[in-house]
Amino acid sequence: MTFITSAQDYEEMKKLATLVRVMNGLGHNPATSGNYSLRSKTSPEIALVSESGIDKSRFTEDNFLPLYYQTRTMHESVLHSNRKSSDETDIHLSLYQITDANCVLHSHMLDALLFADLFPGKSYAQMKGLELLKGFRNVKTHDLEINVPIFDNTQDIRALSELIKPAILSQENNYGLLLRGHGIYVWGKSVEEAKRHLEVFEYLFKYYLKSSKH
Amino acid sequence: MTFITSAQDYEEMKKLATLVRVMNGLGHNPATSGNYSLRSKTSPEIALVSESGIDKSRFTEDNFLPLYYQTRTMHESVLHSNRKSSDETDIHLSLYQITDANCVLHSHMLDALLFADLFPGKSYAQMKGLELLKGFRNVKTHDLEINVPIFDNTQDIRALSELIKPAILSQENNYGLLLRGHGIYVWGKSVEEAKRHLEVFEYLFKYYLKSSKH
Amino acid sequence: MTFITSAQDYEEMKKLATLVRVMNGLGHNPATSGNYSLRSKTSPEIALVSESGIDKSRFTEDNFLPLYYQTRTMHESVLHSNRKSSDETDIHLSLYQITDANCVLHSHMLDALLFADLFPGKSYAQMKGLELLKGFRNVKTHDLEINVPIFDNTQDIRALSELIKPAILSQENNYGLLLRGHGIYVWGKSVEEAKRHLEVFEYLFKYYLKSSKH
Amino acid sequence: MTFITSAQDYEEMKKLATLVRVMNGLGHNPATSGNYSLRSKTSPEIALVSESGIDKSRFTEDNFLPLYYQTRTMHESVLHSNRKSSDETDIHLSLYQITDANCVLHSHMLDALLFADLFPGKSYAQMKGLELLKGFRNVKTHDLEINVPIFDNTQDIRALSELIKPAILSQENNYGLLLRGHGIYVWGKSVEEAKRHLEVFEYLFKYYLKSSKH
Repeated sequence: MTFITSAQDYEEMKKLATLVRVMNGLGHNPATSGNYSLRSKTSPEIALVSESGIDKSRFTEDNFLPLYYQTRTMHESVLHSNRKSSDETDIHLSLYQITDANCVLHSHMLDALLFADLFPGKSYAQMKGLELLKGFRNVKTHDLEINVPIFDNTQDIRALSELIKPAILSQENNYGLLLRGHGIYVWGKSVEEAKRHLEVFEYLFKYYLKSSKH
Repeated sequence: MTFITSAQDYEEMKKLATLVRVMNGLGHNPATSGNYSLRSKTSPEIALVSESGIDKSRFTEDNFLPLYYQTRTMHESVLHSNRKSSDETDIHLSLYQITDANCVLHSHMLDALLFADLFPGKSYAQMKGLELLKGFRNVKTHDLEINVPIFDNTQDIRALSELIKPAILSQENNYGLLLRGHGIYVWGKSVEEAKRHLEVFEYLFKYYLKSSKH
Repeated sequence: MTFITSAQDYEEMKKLATLVRVMNGLGHNPATSGNYSLRSKTSPEIALVSESGIDKSRFTEDNFLPLYYQTRTMHESVLHSNRKSSDETDIHLSLYQITDANCVLHSHMLDALLFADLFPGKSYAQMKGLELLKGFRNVKTHDLEINVPIFDNTQDIRALSELIKPAILSQENNYGLLLRGHGIYVWGKSVEEAKRHLEVFEYLFKYYLKSSKH
Repeated sequence: MTFITSAQDYEEMKKLATLVRVMNGLGHNPATSGNYSLRSKTSPEIALVSESGIDKSRFTEDNFLPLYYQTRTMHESVLHSNRKSSDETDIHLSLYQITDANCVLHSHMLDALLFADLFPGKSYAQMKGLELLKGFRNVKTHDLEINVPIFDNTQDIRALSELIKPAILSQENNYGLLLRGHGIYVWGKSVEEAKRHLEVFEYLFKYYLKSSKH
């Protein structure tokens, strides 16, 4: 069975691929790291996840592979190919299972690691009181606190992808997941919103890292 | 009643829109933040203020809306449109009411937040003794002190826009207003002067933040 | 005897020259510093080493000179020319003698100096526990430790090029050599792998320098 | 009397103007600061000094004015024009009087201010032991110490331009002059050498500022 990419999905894949190359130039993907995905607009059971090992400076709309995100299985069209989705595909699939995200970005930006290090032994990192929090969807004031789940890094991504679910579901106004020594997952209802949320996280991380307040 | 943009204003709008896109690339507008305005050269009762929610990488001369800055009302031509000027329009309008500024820039640059944090509980931040102070209009020596008003952030921008007036009027040689956890407003007699003043603030903030002297 | 550059070598020389210019733009080669080399694919006794004193913003595929890396002698074709390979040629040649590297990069990036300074009096610098270690060839987990040899700087490069050999041979999964107050040598099986290893080192150095953990 | 620019001088003016625009993009000239000059190759009594108040992003070969550097007077061709050389012209002229420099660069880079602050109350700043010192003319080893004169900032540039002379003449292998809270003057025998020396200073300043050693 061939997977037919719809015109709507193809436009989003092109948009996200452009964002991946821009993010790469800004240091989010050292040494071919990072992975990216979309929820299909026309095949609602499908997520389109980036291929493993691609140099992100050359990432294109052809580097996404379709998977059934509920069953965590590759679509029949690529099941017997040599192509493999990212090692961290299961995190993306869990996010499509439990949130209304339509786009997930995974960055290795150094500030995400350093920010998580400000909260040793904690399950959540706090961010509060800054105007730019209003860049998150539905946030209308600087005067609130957002809790971002933090998990230890692991090579057992399948297990991790279940562990993260209750932590994410328990928080309001949060659109990110931190992995210690590894990076951050950020999501949104669209490519544009996921990018905006990523910019908010990056700015807030820099603030807390440079601030004498923490 | 249609608002007819004069050729002079249109040139300034194009110049400022270019500056907005350049500033965006330099990190002044994460996540669609920031707002910008001009005093009309040909309709002296009018300020031209940037629209709300525009991605600043795509900001153009068509993203300014005319308002009467004394009465704080939209010009008739846009009053019944769906277009809305920035949430922080009232700060811009107050600056046109009480200063001779013809251009106002609002940046979220992180260094403005961190610099304000060096003055906890204070109403003014001090800058002194540096050669680059001569980049401010009418400053001819490094050997003087400039006091920049600082206010706490708020979502009640209308009230804030009145509170700032006496603080700004009380200071000489000052062309900026700091909001804690939010950013900075900078103004000048022209787009070029406002840009030069912004460069002075950015440089001085970095100096004080990195210096062991504070 | 003329050295005939093969088509395969010429492609690699062009690829590496492009990388040199990109690295220069990123600050790896202040003031004409840095040097670069390849092992010939078609003349296995030959290394192609960058010329001395070239401004790296103008480095091209014509700025490599052939040397016999076992005997440390210039190829006959350039022996009586006025051209001279880098002062640090002997380090490159030692690396071709004792490793399977086909490309060696020497960067003066400041973070390499500062990272080495975190290990005063030590013979090795440790890096461990970070996901990006998986960017090194054959590393499959973040949960290991890599030891990078550190040597004091010297102007006697010939002597240094022998001293480094046992230190490099004693370590697994290591693709770098630090010189205090000087910079780093990084190698890989290809231009692409050497570049990827350099990105891993740069990222890890920044992490350790910014981290409160060291 | 008209000043006829020779073909040799014109080539150097174009080369230096290009460097000025590049340096501007790298942050050396915030808010129209900075000034630049050449010693004429064909009229040995003449220095060509940048005009006052030019936005350095638009600096061209036409923004240099000829002066007699021994008598500190403008050339007859510009004496009665409205054009004015930089306020800091006298520093440039003193350097042509007492050194063999043919090009002088004045940068406001922040790291020069912060580096000078590491030596409060001192007349000289020390730099030693780093490989990149070899980027200075005639320096063949990392194992030496260079003393860079430091002066307090002043608006009396004429007086300062005499005070600096003995301090500069007393030092070997030094190609720079620091002004506290202001910036650095750097010189060389050519535009290329002055640029290389500037890159060495910038790199060394960053090292000392970030190093835990000072």
